[in-house]
Amino acid sequence: MSEPNLTLHTDKYQINMMYAHWKRGTQNDRAVFEVYFRKLPFGNGYAVFAGLERMIGYLSKLSFGEEELRYLQTQEEGYDEAFFDELRSFKFNGSIDAVPEGTLVFPNVPLVRVEARVFEAQLIETALLNFVNYQTLIATKASRVKQVAPNELLLEFGTRRAQEADAAIWGARAAYIAGFHATSNLRAGLRFGIPTAGTHAHAWVQGHDSEEAAFRDYAEALPDHVTLLVDTYDTLKSGVPNAIRIAQELQERGKRLKGIRLDSGDLAYLSKRAREMLDEAGFPDVKIVASNDLDENLIAELKAQGARIDSWGVGTQLITAFDQPALGGVYKLVAREHEGAMEPVIKISGNLEKISNPGVKEAYRIVNADNGMAEADYVTLPGDKDIAEGRPLRLIDPLHPHRIKRVDRYRAIPLLQPVYAKGKLVYGLPKLDDIRDEHVKQLALFWPEHLRKLNPEPYRVNYSPAVLELKAELIRKHLSE
Amino acid sequence: MSEPNLTLHTDKYQINMMYAHWKRGTQNDRAVFEVYFRKLPFGNGYAVFAGLERMIGYLSKLSFGEEELRYLQTQEEGYDEAFFDELRSFKFNGSIDAVPEGTLVFPNVPLVRVEARVFEAQLIETALLNFVNYQTLIATKASRVKQVAPNELLLEFGTRRAQEADAAIWGARAAYIAGFHATSNLRAGLRFGIPTAGTHAHAWVQGHDSEEAAFRDYAEALPDHVTLLVDTYDTLKSGVPNAIRIAQELQERGKRLKGIRLDSGDLAYLSKRAREMLDEAGFPDVKIVASNDLDENLIAELKAQGARIDSWGVGTQLITAFDQPALGGVYKLVAREHEGAMEPVIKISGNLEKISNPGVKEAYRIVNADNGMAEADYVTLPGDKDIAEGRPLRLIDPLHPHRIKRVDRYRAIPLLQPVYAKGKLVYGLPKLDDIRDEHVKQLALFWPEHLRKLNPEPYRVNYSPAVLELKAELIRKHLSE
Repeated sequence: MSEPNLTLHTDKYQINMMYAHWKRGTQNDRAVFEVYFRKLPFGNGYAVFAGLERMIGYLSKLSFGEEELRYLQTQEEGYDEAFFDELRSFKFNGSIDAVPEGTLVFPNVPLVRVEARVFEAQLIETALLNFVNYQTLIATKASRVKQVAPNELLLEFGTRRAQEADAAIWGARAAYIAGFHATSNLRAGLRFGIPTAGTHAHAWVQGHDSEEAAFRDYAEALPDHVTLLVDTYDTLKSGVPNAIRIAQELQERGKRLKGIRLDSGDLAYLSKRAREMLDEAGFPDVKIVASNDLDENLIAELKAQGARIDSWGVGTQLITAFDQPALGGVYKLVAREHEGAMEPVIKISGNLEKISNPGVKEAYRIVNADNGMAEADYVTLPGDKDIAEGRPLRLIDPLHPHRIKRVDRYRAIPLLQPVYAKGKLVYGLPKLDDIRDEHVKQLALFWPEHLRKLNPEPYRVNYSPAVLELKAELIRKHLSE
Repeated sequence: MSEPNLTLHTDKYQINMMYAHWKRGTQNDRAVFEVYFRKLPFGNGYAVFAGLERMIGYLSKLSFGEEELRYLQTQEEGYDEAFFDELRSFKFNGSIDAVPEGTLVFPNVPLVRVEARVFEAQLIETALLNFVNYQTLIATKASRVKQVAPNELLLEFGTRRAQEADAAIWGARAAYIAGFHATSNLRAGLRFGIPTAGTHAHAWVQGHDSEEAAFRDYAEALPDHVTLLVDTYDTLKSGVPNAIRIAQELQERGKRLKGIRLDSGDLAYLSKRAREMLDEAGFPDVKIVASNDLDENLIAELKAQGARIDSWGVGTQLITAFDQPALGGVYKLVAREHEGAMEPVIKISGNLEKISNPGVKEAYRIVNADNGMAEADYVTLPGDKDIAEGRPLRLIDPLHPHRIKRVDRYRAIPLLQPVYAKGKLVYGLPKLDDIRDEHVKQLALFWPEHLRKLNPEPYRVNYSPAVLELKAELIRKHLSE
């Protein structure tokens, strides 16, 4: 597949900062940035990390072509000509560590850590956030749907309402990671190998003299793959009886009708009546697919009302993350090269939660060795002795210091994995189905109380004493200046 | 710019319907589809149409490559081999009429009308909706922002929170059409010629020993384009005083500081104090730019509180249309070829507002000849005599038939313009700046009561008696069957 050059998929201020570094001669200074978010979306108890494949594709092709350079030369800033030579030889030579896709992730834990020349680290900020924010958001939304419909077939149907073409395919992929089974989007199928699914539209029925003729023609064309949309005129009076007629005709040819699809009306009532009608006619195996602006809340409601639905087609609400269409992931400088050494840095803010956590950090998932369940995520400085030696941890909630939890026997699983080392890709991106399987294993690490869709019990994210001391010290230093 | 092949940017059911038509031998039957939406987004009184350039780019390159065909050959449907020959020679040979970009549009008015072989008309449904839904949504959101800040500089800053890469550029373009002045996204600048803008990030300040040194270095690099971000540590105690110091140094070199940017805290209070400090120091021309999760409501509030802000950077809320991230545009079959003639068709639904309006339709904007103001949009069948002869119109609200308005002297401006005629592009897409200017002229056609952001007076959309009779007749026919 041909790909557009995404090197200018960035904010102008990145180029201006790169230019100012270059003018000042500091473009080769090292810098470390971390990507994290401060708040979980949808009131959920966790998020599902996604975006890594996209990041790797982007970084591997990052290069200013002549078209990009000519464009930058037209800018009112009037950059020096020699700057373009610097850009012409630009290549990503930095190191990146990231959480594997499908991992459950939590606020204020580094998800991606970039160590690179500041020149490179600035350029990639915008694109990395754009990819991680959207894909993590959709994987999380999809996971919520999966929580309420763990045993049904889940279909991603959102392309026509997606926010443009890229969102449709990367959103479909994110949904698949979190447990959806198929997408309607064929480009996503081609690109990622996700199974694709589709029935027919109302137009197919409208384009015929009668609904029955429309169903028959469709069954004629694709006899082994017939799911009939039954709500064009009247679901129970016309759609389902006609579908049953076609099921009987298929049966005479030794074939089975696969399903019917309900796309409007009272899905609880209609699905129960349709189920009865299909069962009475001898078709208990014909599946009922439902669609129509569904989300996790509506699906849970319909199930509570006894709806007899085997498969959910989820569109707009999933692909746009309708109830919260952006994840506020940020990319913050945590350390910079200063006089040859790396030095931690902080950003102070009037909003306390916006004060950044300084220093290059490691993140561990602390898994209780006795019961195998995740106790907390633990963020610390590299070379933490407690972790290295497996000493008991005292987990202190930084906002509520009386909330202390002691863990004696644990495994500390590093969350960040090497992806790029000095510009070299060192990560073997797992197959998509393996990412999906890994996500299921991830879920098993957590108590159900953290996973429920409404008012989940917050999972602990704790910072080591060393990180908290460093932060306090830098705040004191800034306030005293 | 290289572009991915978007031919499979479609739902699988389109291919299945194409296949079923082909099996049945009806793939060359003509069909007419219309794109419209039923409800305005954000409680706004109008929407701003966008998406046409994208549609044209897509249709002009629509073609199944070998990669796409090989993929379809792997599908479980097991399509006949001869079907792929049909796809191999596929080209869009249909006719399309559409509303020009930047036009104010309203519910239930056809925005795009496709007349083509059903084989072609089905394939393109998903992509057309994807483009028009997103771009119209963002242009409308941007227009709301423009309504509350008509005299300030408006900057689109949303890329890091956009729903993937395409949304960032097409959203930036939609915002520009509706009156934004610049975007931070360089790829949008390259592709569409939209002015780009950018300052620097907190990381620039954090990467220096002091804020003052950071500002000085930035001013050194780009002395004619200095806008300083003043909230890294403390806006009024540190940021603004340091910015004033740099302004003085620039002044000594015969240069002016362009602006400061506020990105957190109480923007009303901070902007007033910063304005006073800048004025007192002799810099009344230094602009104040504000950002931080702004939308039209927050901007209106800040202005009501006397905020002294010259330029608004709008990010997440605009690029995702945060409060309603999808427009529910639909693509409905209105007529089909039947025994050699075109025949109107309808879709019945339990939800009354979802019953489609049958028949190929024209849409006119009825402009009062006495005062030049738009009275209503009027949807009728082709060849409407009243319109052709300029006879007085009785505008009847179909839901409230007592709401009748008579218009005697009017101009009837056709809303739909020919874009493709039998596969040939016949529309000269205007330059982006001309689209933007045309949008301003469009706004002048409407009373301010229709344009206000809260509780606007609904603008009339009326259907001609001929359309309403046709609809009633088709409903009767279906109910009697």
